[in-house]
Amino acid sequence: MAAARTLRIGLIPGDGIGREVIPAGRRILESLPSSLNLKFSFVDLDAGYETFQKTGTALPDKTVDTLKKECDGALFGAVSSPSTKVAGYSSPIVALRKKLDLYANVRPVKTTAGNSNGKPIDLVIVRENTEDLYVKEERTIEGPNGKVAEAIKRISEHASFRISNIAGEIALRRQNIRAAAAASTRNQAMVTITHKSNVLSQTDGLFRETARRALAAEKFSSIFVEEQIVDSMVYKLFRQPEFYDVIVAPNLYGDILSDGAAALVGSLGLVPSANVGDGFAIGEPCHGSAPDIEGQGISNPIATIRSVALMLEFLGEEKAAAQIYAAVDSNLDAAQFLTPDMGGKATTQQVLDDVLKRL
Amino acid sequence: MAAARTLRIGLIPGDGIGREVIPAGRRILESLPSSLNLKFSFVDLDAGYETFQKTGTALPDKTVDTLKKECDGALFGAVSSPSTKVAGYSSPIVALRKKLDLYANVRPVKTTAGNSNGKPIDLVIVRENTEDLYVKEERTIEGPNGKVAEAIKRISEHASFRISNIAGEIALRRQNIRAAAAASTRNQAMVTITHKSNVLSQTDGLFRETARRALAAEKFSSIFVEEQIVDSMVYKLFRQPEFYDVIVAPNLYGDILSDGAAALVGSLGLVPSANVGDGFAIGEPCHGSAPDIEGQGISNPIATIRSVALMLEFLGEEKAAAQIYAAVDSNLDAAQFLTPDMGGKATTQQVLDDVLKRL
Ligand SMILES: CC(C)[C@H](C(=O)O)[C@@H](O)C(=O)O
Ligand SMILES: CC(C)[C@H](C(=O)O)[C@@H](O)C(=O)O
Repeated sequence: MAAARTLRIGLIPGDGIGREVIPAGRRILESLPSSLNLKFSFVDLDAGYETFQKTGTALPDKTVDTLKKECDGALFGAVSSPSTKVAGYSSPIVALRKKLDLYANVRPVKTTAGNSNGKPIDLVIVRENTEDLYVKEERTIEGPNGKVAEAIKRISEHASFRISNIAGEIALRRQNIRAAAAASTRNQAMVTITHKSNVLSQTDGLFRETARRALAAEKFSSIFVEEQIVDSMVYKLFRQPEFYDVIVAPNLYGDILSDGAAALVGSLGLVPSANVGDGFAIGEPCHGSAPDIEGQGISNPIATIRSVALMLEFLGEEKAAAQIYAAVDSNLDAAQFLTPDMGGKATTQQVLDDVLKRL
Repeated sequence: MAAARTLRIGLIPGDGIGREVIPAGRRILESLPSSLNLKFSFVDLDAGYETFQKTGTALPDKTVDTLKKECDGALFGAVSSPSTKVAGYSSPIVALRKKLDLYANVRPVKTTAGNSNGKPIDLVIVRENTEDLYVKEERTIEGPNGKVAEAIKRISEHASFRISNIAGEIALRRQNIRAAAAASTRNQAMVTITHKSNVLSQTDGLFRETARRALAAEKFSSIFVEEQIVDSMVYKLFRQPEFYDVIVAPNLYGDILSDGAAALVGSLGLVPSANVGDGFAIGEPCHGSAPDIEGQGISNPIATIRSVALMLEFLGEEKAAAQIYAAVDSNLDAAQFLTPDMGGKATTQQVLDDVLKRL
């Protein structure tokens, strides 16, 4: 038998319910069947608003250094945003994405047999993760009519190409998985390019053209490529979500679309994400720090558990990922242990135990 | 009896189904009960992609001049966007909003008793209409890794203040109408400020602060003011649309949110808008030029008919507006004449006739 692969995983719970769900993610990794031949070691790392209040920085250098030097992947919980502007505070997850060049934010949104209102949804939003308005280059001037603030929206050919390329790769991988399962009605892969080039002809125009070019590559010839203006995309996402497969979008549209898609499956507490770079991935539930339910032990661990699977997928461990997805689907279909956001009464721990049992 | 008020209305059908719905809007104005003591004269004006192809400009000076010098209000249909970049073409409606300083884009989204899935929705999106990324200041440079394009997102205190102020006025007006009807379960007015200041602390931060300040005015003391980050706003809009009253947003978020809200009421073909400035208003259906159904006589005229009412509301003719809204609600509740987008088989003409009958 081959030596086990050992993966070192950084754990960054952050604030609020991040501290309740990240331990659940760790437990999943520790409980993977030994037949997978995977071992894990963990390192606890700080980030978030509380870290900022204690140390003056929301993302300590040590966290970034440790991830870069020691880790193969990481799990990130959530961070609280201060309710009013706080000088010097800036979101650690946005900084982390840039510092580790995690250029793709991959957000699958999926119903299971037991968790849909009739419309089966199985789509992935592939969000560019390093530029657009998230470059945070802003300035404010005092004009004759009061303040005027400006921000730069930056779209590069380089980033647009690589995000479109990975969107294509993901579409192909999904197509292969469907073909192997032979259980799906959809056979052709599809990528929908989202933009607003009717207004932003240069920036979003560049995204659109570059995405078209990237997806015209020979290796993607089996993919049907279409496009939607972002406002119309939101409309269609709500009217016919079952139609979509892979949606590729610049950073901000991807942010908005993924929350929209999450609403369609009933709870943000179900939706995972992975921040993916070359050879590194950070799993991150799409929900926030949820101060309203913090400390009650009722936060939904499913988004984090699915994020663990997604992280493993991008670290090349597709088999482990598939097993975790299957355990989650089975938990949701049984609908016996559901947290309150899903209309149930279960605790975080009960959902975790149920998923572990099915793993 | 007082002399009739005469309003001169510019008619700008634009492209595609704009040419089918704008005539319906005109018929509504011509058919208003004489008891309202309103007279209308009309002037046909050009704009759109076809105008661009014929004349080299999508918005002829004559259209702008006539609106400025002769008209009290206007109706705008829709314009087609070219499917690939066309040099020199730029959206005439975006230009018109800026040239006439129509600083508010008001988009009410409402279910009627007969047209809801159980959740009664009655909200208005008040979208800033002159700045944000719509200033269209873009540039492209050739970098070492390919092209890099940048666009300016501009948010001013001035524009943020006046849009928030009109959002407050609209919330109060709605509160008064509800109080008069005594039929609603909601009594308190609410304004939700939408932004992404957790990432864009200066631009969206300025919008947020300014909106807070505008809505803290004494005259708005009966309004409950809250805020939502834009991604979370989309999520909540889909999860609990019945909770919202007035949503105020910068230009681009307002664009996206209004399409999202339209999806909730079943069809973009129902959703009106008004582009509102001081003493001028352009009614505009939220749908586009819909090349797929153009020329079949089956486009839904409801969005335009409601836009006629909305235009009149902002020209001070609230009574006429209320009568049009009531006729539309009655048409929708009867559900006898519905166009295909609503699951019916009626033509544009049949729906128009039915609404006229109920007027
Ligand atoms: C917290 C915030 C900065 C973040 C983002 O906008 O990317 C969040 O909304 C997300 O989607 O991960
Ligand atoms: C056609 C387009 C330029 C326009 C906009 O983005 O404002 C449209 O989407 C709208 O909402 O009126």
